[in-house]
Amino acid sequence: MSNQLKGAAIIGQSGGPTSVINASAYGVIRTALDNPSITHVYGAAHGIRGVLDDVLYDMGQEDAAELKLLLNTPSSALGSCRYKLKDSEADDTDYKRILEIFKKYDVRYFFYNGGNDSMDTCNKISKYMQKAGYECRIMGVPKTIDNDLWGTDHCPGYASAAKFVATTCMEIYQDARVYDTGMLCVLEIMGRHAGWLTAAAALASHMGCGPDLIYLPERDFDMDTFFADVKRIYNATGKCLVAVSEGIHDKTGALIAEYGAENAPTDAFGHKQLGGLAATLANLLKNEIGCKVRGIEFSLMQRCGAHIASQTDIDESFRSGQAAVEYATQGITDKMVGFERGADAQGKYVCNIKLMDLADVANAEKKVPQEWINSAGNGLNEPFIQYALPLIQGEPQRTLENGLPRFARLKKIAAK
Amino acid sequence: MSNQLKGAAIIGQSGGPTSVINASAYGVIRTALDNPSITHVYGAAHGIRGVLDDVLYDMGQEDAAELKLLLNTPSSALGSCRYKLKDSEADDTDYKRILEIFKKYDVRYFFYNGGNDSMDTCNKISKYMQKAGYECRIMGVPKTIDNDLWGTDHCPGYASAAKFVATTCMEIYQDARVYDTGMLCVLEIMGRHAGWLTAAAALASHMGCGPDLIYLPERDFDMDTFFADVKRIYNATGKCLVAVSEGIHDKTGALIAEYGAENAPTDAFGHKQLGGLAATLANLLKNEIGCKVRGIEFSLMQRCGAHIASQTDIDESFRSGQAAVEYATQGITDKMVGFERGADAQGKYVCNIKLMDLADVANAEKKVPQEWINSAGNGLNEPFIQYALPLIQGEPQRTLENGLPRFARLKKIAAK
Repeated sequence: MSNQLKGAAIIGQSGGPTSVINASAYGVIRTALDNPSITHVYGAAHGIRGVLDDVLYDMGQEDAAELKLLLNTPSSALGSCRYKLKDSEADDTDYKRILEIFKKYDVRYFFYNGGNDSMDTCNKISKYMQKAGYECRIMGVPKTIDNDLWGTDHCPGYASAAKFVATTCMEIYQDARVYDTGMLCVLEIMGRHAGWLTAAAALASHMGCGPDLIYLPERDFDMDTFFADVKRIYNATGKCLVAVSEGIHDKTGALIAEYGAENAPTDAFGHKQLGGLAATLANLLKNEIGCKVRGIEFSLMQRCGAHIASQTDIDESFRSGQAAVEYATQGITDKMVGFERGADAQGKYVCNIKLMDLADVANAEKKVPQEWINSAGNGLNEPFIQYALPLIQGEPQRTLENGLPRFARLKKIAAK
Repeated sequence: MSNQLKGAAIIGQSGGPTSVINASAYGVIRTALDNPSITHVYGAAHGIRGVLDDVLYDMGQEDAAELKLLLNTPSSALGSCRYKLKDSEADDTDYKRILEIFKKYDVRYFFYNGGNDSMDTCNKISKYMQKAGYECRIMGVPKTIDNDLWGTDHCPGYASAAKFVATTCMEIYQDARVYDTGMLCVLEIMGRHAGWLTAAAALASHMGCGPDLIYLPERDFDMDTFFADVKRIYNATGKCLVAVSEGIHDKTGALIAEYGAENAPTDAFGHKQLGGLAATLANLLKNEIGCKVRGIEFSLMQRCGAHIASQTDIDESFRSGQAAVEYATQGITDKMVGFERGADAQGKYVCNIKLMDLADVANAEKKVPQEWINSAGNGLNEPFIQYALPLIQGEPQRTLENGLPRFARLKKIAAK
């Protein structure tokens, strides 16, 4: 493969958004706009759907200052999708269409910004293009608040969500113990299979004001043990703050979140009404212990809280997008940009870029190591704290207007 | 009454906490510690309960730098309560006890930091002390995220919660419209009788990324009109973001939050399970419109989100505590510190202190003016924006440790 390849680039975003996925996209867009090998930079509307539907935006026509605001604009500015490509052996309709669009715009660079499924999409397109003999360099730029991508020290997006979780846990700790009466509080944090984000609640406990109990999906959840854990702390202090991953499950694998749904409760209109996990556990505790209980779901806030993002995360997210373009224009293809943890001469955390095979990342999942979880399965050990703390450092340098965030306003001019 | 009165001071905090109630307390404590008329400064544990139980902390023994951290420490550092004093004519037990404690510690200044009920407590104590011939100066220092105290332009605590609401609405707006599929989102915001805090969602809309529809308890809520409002926007755009006050009610006065409870749904354990208003409306919309719906409750986060507090609010909260001490030591008693809006020579917002009779404030409630709500009852008019914007200006100057908030750690040494 020649090192010199001239043509257009497409950047797409996919999967659940994060506070900093646009920082990665900006890393790609800015670097690509400035690179002489890249003739045009197109943003795909709603990820691969924008390619299939021929809805591409010309990033070169955006105002530079407006593009820079992407560094602090949460969610996916180009739009996202959850579209899964079929296997090309079984059905190559989509692939033919993608090739057609690539040819139409002379696309030689494809950058895809997303989680596991997006790396799978990257990998499939890359393999198809190779088979079709169409020269094109394809790079994955990771993002996920779940931090569950295999082979990388951590993922862009995780640290900002972790900082939201830790900060919010600390604030709720102050609030939830203010009265001279008993109080239990259950916090529900995202993470279906991996407990990385819920583990971030332990950073608040490390600061002296966080959850008393933390449960991750890496361990089976037992309701009787849970009741006993809470009662022990409540009886001693009159309060108990609990953090749970949305994905906690019992030893049969049944989700605790669905314990509340079995009797199919209905509202006044006769419709089935599902509470979340926090509400389910809060209700169970209320009946078991009898004091005041509050269930709180961090919901979308934890993945779009750009105002409390980690500047380290923003910088690394930008850098991963930048590196993808640099490597691709140097002849690299078929890789995901990953992170390797290092230390400088003073022993201070540094984040180095490494490249990983798309095929290796695509469908693997990284979980919290069992030895980082305490033996009772209700808290985190010191190695997790040491792992997570460097990632959440630095306050975001935001642009404000009227005391409120000034997010990027893209013109989204259609590519010709 | 002589202007010169020497003795100890008590500061207590009461009612639901805010992000900045400790800034007011610090305004009282710092100013009182520095004032030659005040011999000791005592913090009452859990408001008036600490006085009744003789649990007082000697604020003079706290580290000055630690006390200063109260400016950015959310919730009530001294502890709060919801204790309502009986009428002294009917039962003067509590009052006799308070007088006993005041005499024991030679308390001549009493500062109470709270909402309507706290002003009622202040007023009752003040009247009793006058009747008992015990010279004591009693001042109310307001706080409430509800902004519903009568006679003052706004209340300390409101602006920081409003800034959290507006910022979070803007972030969720980005997130909730990221996919190329239909999406409805319902945000539940605190405020049982007054819609001030929910109205703050309109600041996000003013910035171009906020709720499409906003419903306050100042208007009757009609479910059919609501469905029609949402469908109109959803059919045009494929998305709809809605903000509702927890206290919205139908024309009979029945809370919409309780619509979901009528059929008494039960979980797998046979316990009654109550969803919140957001979940109730989300479920109703899901069944009415059929697309993806998310209900999000801002819960405690909106009143303890000190990391996104308004610096204007912090400054004004401190100033109100400071003013209470200054006026009291100058001979004033029986007043609440209020705010009057003014303008400087350039027409820029300034906040002036005014004094209000405790008796006038105690049990009155201030609501959002009807003319600030749009005629359809689903949004706010420009005068509200102009009212609220100056209040949320300025980013909090926080002390951080490990990238996380460093909250005040008080020693709480018992008074002698």
